[in-house]
Amino acid sequence: MIPYIAWFDYAGVALFAATGALTASRKQLDIMGFFFLAILTGVGGGTVRDLILDVPVFWVQQQAYLVVCMATAVGVYFTAHLVESRYHVLLWLDAVALSVYAVVGAHKGLQLTGSPFVAIMTGAMTGTLGGILRDVLAGEPNAVTHKEIYITATVLGAASYVVMRMAGFPVFADAAIGGLVAFTARAGAIRFGWAMPPYRSRPGRPADMP
Amino acid sequence: MIPYIAWFDYAGVALFAATGALTASRKQLDIMGFFFLAILTGVGGGTVRDLILDVPVFWVQQQAYLVVCMATAVGVYFTAHLVESRYHVLLWLDAVALSVYAVVGAHKGLQLTGSPFVAIMTGAMTGTLGGILRDVLAGEPNAVTHKEIYITATVLGAASYVVMRMAGFPVFADAAIGGLVAFTARAGAIRFGWAMPPYRSRPGRPADMP
Amino acid sequence: MIPYIAWFDYAGVALFAATGALTASRKQLDIMGFFFLAILTGVGGGTVRDLILDVPVFWVQQQAYLVVCMATAVGVYFTAHLVESRYHVLLWLDAVALSVYAVVGAHKGLQLTGSPFVAIMTGAMTGTLGGILRDVLAGEPNAVTHKEIYITATVLGAASYVVMRMAGFPVFADAAIGGLVAFTARAGAIRFGWAMPPYRSRPGRPADMP
Repeated sequence: MIPYIAWFDYAGVALFAATGALTASRKQLDIMGFFFLAILTGVGGGTVRDLILDVPVFWVQQQAYLVVCMATAVGVYFTAHLVESRYHVLLWLDAVALSVYAVVGAHKGLQLTGSPFVAIMTGAMTGTLGGILRDVLAGEPNAVTHKEIYITATVLGAASYVVMRMAGFPVFADAAIGGLVAFTARAGAIRFGWAMPPYRSRPGRPADMP
Repeated sequence: MIPYIAWFDYAGVALFAATGALTASRKQLDIMGFFFLAILTGVGGGTVRDLILDVPVFWVQQQAYLVVCMATAVGVYFTAHLVESRYHVLLWLDAVALSVYAVVGAHKGLQLTGSPFVAIMTGAMTGTLGGILRDVLAGEPNAVTHKEIYITATVLGAASYVVMRMAGFPVFADAAIGGLVAFTARAGAIRFGWAMPPYRSRPGRPADMP
Repeated sequence: MIPYIAWFDYAGVALFAATGALTASRKQLDIMGFFFLAILTGVGGGTVRDLILDVPVFWVQQQAYLVVCMATAVGVYFTAHLVESRYHVLLWLDAVALSVYAVVGAHKGLQLTGSPFVAIMTGAMTGTLGGILRDVLAGEPNAVTHKEIYITATVLGAASYVVMRMAGFPVFADAAIGGLVAFTARAGAIRFGWAMPPYRSRPGRPADMP
């Protein structure tokens, strides 16, 4: 893996792990609950991606990822009380994490299959599934039913990365732009409520009035 | 794959994708939510099946499946308001989808392992898991707790296909009969409330009365 | 696989299958619901473990596991009414199952990767995921949010097994001790409410009082 991307990868895992640990703190779990949710959220999306792409699961190969998740969990365990609104922090960490991870997922998908389409899929998948798993297991509403932009941000980020990559720009620029696009979309959603038009049921064909 | 079955496969994916998109319309999601639920429901069951059978995931190989899901999502997005009761349509589409997909799953399981037992498992799994994933993520009650026949329909359909296949009938007949059996069982459940006897706790061994 | 462990493995699958079937009985499902939850709970954790370790899924290779699940489901279907408190039985069966399965998972992880760290992960994963899947699909609160010791028990059991195994003790002793440690921890949780200190939000740094 290209070194830039490897850093992105560790950062994404740590950020998602932090959101898992914050969820554990909001649920008042014990330290093992922190570890569990940190690891599940941190490596969940990437694990599904690797299974689907039929490559060895990344954290079985590189156990440093698990150490990163656990260290993050410990860090959150001892510092979460210092922040004013843990929900707020969780929301923003999640935004950064999904931006980073959408790029990493797109990169891995493109490298392994050469297909831009699959790359966008693996980007979106990697960016969202960890958080969805976290929310389903913690019994919270998950990203699928978010009204504001969420999945869309990962798709935009992954697509930007893929387009720039195929246009031949250097990987670092592609990753930076991809991450920035995803983050901007999600940040707008959090800060200003950016949303795509929701589906609204329109009335059926009206009966002819006499 | 035998051509008949390939058609069944695309049909099953499209039908399940339509149920995902209809769920998105009932939840008033945006177009990306339609894509997400259409793809998840459309290819979810088959993805788990392929991972368990240790073959390449079908949609990574044939991206046309993703295109089918997305086209279906767009179609539903622009037409869902025309139908009277979207829930009704969802229920019946789901019935057709599980029938088709139980057969496809059984076919793939039988072809790859030669075991009728595993084939019935993969048939039932492929026919139900996409819908279960859809319902869990959308926060709706899932098939496991349905009172009327549901999982049973996929098992009957898959079993019929497997029995006829092993008896040497032509694949087209096997698939048609298998699909028909599953659909009949599920249709009876929707239309007439067909159900297998539920477990009822009976009183324990009564104490000897004096 | 070493014969002792193979017995543990079948026992773990049967015990988890029994908890799935008991959940089905509490939800008043039909016999197919019993089969579904018995199989899902019985082989779910091990299936995820095998996918992640990139080895053939155990029940595709050895269909006897499915037969064990189904036989257990039938047994529970016909006897569950005899027990006073099915919830109580479910709780204790689950405790034995997770103890047995934590050891089996750790054994398989250690054998395949040689890494004690991954072995503890696969032990904890195998011991908890089947039950978590069962609870999510049945719409019950899952292990992640348990206040008493649960995940911790599988981690302790798996870690004990791994430490003893690496210290060169005979496999039988390692497995027995590992299982006993896990069971003791979980039994204490059920019987005496053993719990690790939960995370409590402490007030932030107080403002200097004048």
